[in-house]
Amino acid sequence: MKIAVLGTGMVGETIATKLAQSGHEVRMGSRTANNLKAAAWAVAAGAGGSAGTFADAAAFGELVFICTKGDGTLDALRAAGAASLAGKVLIDISNPLDFSKGMPPSLFISNTDSLGETIQRTFPEARVVKTLNTVNCRVMVEPSLIPGDHDMFMCGNDPQAKATVRTILTDWFGWRHVIDLGDITNARATEQLLPMWVRLWGVLKSPNFNLHVVKA
Amino acid sequence: MKIAVLGTGMVGETIATKLAQSGHEVRMGSRTANNLKAAAWAVAAGAGGSAGTFADAAAFGELVFICTKGDGTLDALRAAGAASLAGKVLIDISNPLDFSKGMPPSLFISNTDSLGETIQRTFPEARVVKTLNTVNCRVMVEPSLIPGDHDMFMCGNDPQAKATVRTILTDWFGWRHVIDLGDITNARATEQLLPMWVRLWGVLKSPNFNLHVVKA
Repeated sequence: MKIAVLGTGMVGETIATKLAQSGHEVRMGSRTANNLKAAAWAVAAGAGGSAGTFADAAAFGELVFICTKGDGTLDALRAAGAASLAGKVLIDISNPLDFSKGMPPSLFISNTDSLGETIQRTFPEARVVKTLNTVNCRVMVEPSLIPGDHDMFMCGNDPQAKATVRTILTDWFGWRHVIDLGDITNARATEQLLPMWVRLWGVLKSPNFNLHVVKA
Repeated sequence: MKIAVLGTGMVGETIATKLAQSGHEVRMGSRTANNLKAAAWAVAAGAGGSAGTFADAAAFGELVFICTKGDGTLDALRAAGAASLAGKVLIDISNPLDFSKGMPPSLFISNTDSLGETIQRTFPEARVVKTLNTVNCRVMVEPSLIPGDHDMFMCGNDPQAKATVRTILTDWFGWRHVIDLGDITNARATEQLLPMWVRLWGVLKSPNFNLHVVKA
């Protein structure tokens, strides 16, 4: 499958590498056509990897991962272009973290709105599914790093898009438990987990953990 | 031990009953001296139970549970009186839920502040520990309702107060795993779990669940 990964940071690199290793054609998108990290990634990825602008990548991909830092997400998607996102599954991994006031970060959108909803409103023809934003990027693509049962959340307005994403999470990435929270407004719930995630990282001294929902 | 439970709703009643059954002297506090629910609870609780105003209860208790709805918490504590809270462990179970905009609720304080911090700022001589606010009230006092491993969070500025609360959680209520998140600013993290809690309640069709932090 042809897949766009927007973002050249640790999350983008981890997702793009996993997808390329799984045999997909992956184009990593960044602000400029000559981004060194994206070019180096494409060389390392081999035949299945390529690099380009956000617009190049989004036009190429049949599905799109948005892996930028949260404060760059909307700009990256505008650069990608609404036309290239229309009708496609857009997997939103980004978090609205605000580091401008120091650590721990706060959220620049929260409570009565979310970044996931903002993306869906701004690009109404994209089929946005929010997921993976509640774990470290290594855990995203290798959930077996964490022993036993633990859960990945997803939400979005399009049931078929969520079915596609569930398959990606389970069959491609190895997630055993995926909880569909409902429509995209539930991005409020998953994005507001970040303050707990950041704090637990400090308490546990490791980013390799996840939450499990335990039922009676 | 003499304990004040402020609030006559489901949370207050559940906590007060558990404490009375454990052999403590419990005074349930409410806005008025002749609150029918508090009076009925005191009769049902037997010798260890009594009822009074918020001020009566706070003056009586060696430690204080605040179990009101979040939008009544500060008023209840003002009625209790700073002098009667000074030096005492104040266990804050309340959540800043705002139902005024319909379901699901939003939070009336969040992100860069929390209700727990607001209480500590407003009553600087109280030794505030935030805990139990992330589970249903039945689970609070009977964590074995949920099978297997799952976690209770707590936070607060006073290490001795947290040691007291840890004993209450483990020895009195039966919690096997208590995670100390750090100072009271971490109430932001636990209060912002509520949107996820509310959503999971909808998905699971039951309030009897909890989170387990699973480490690599």
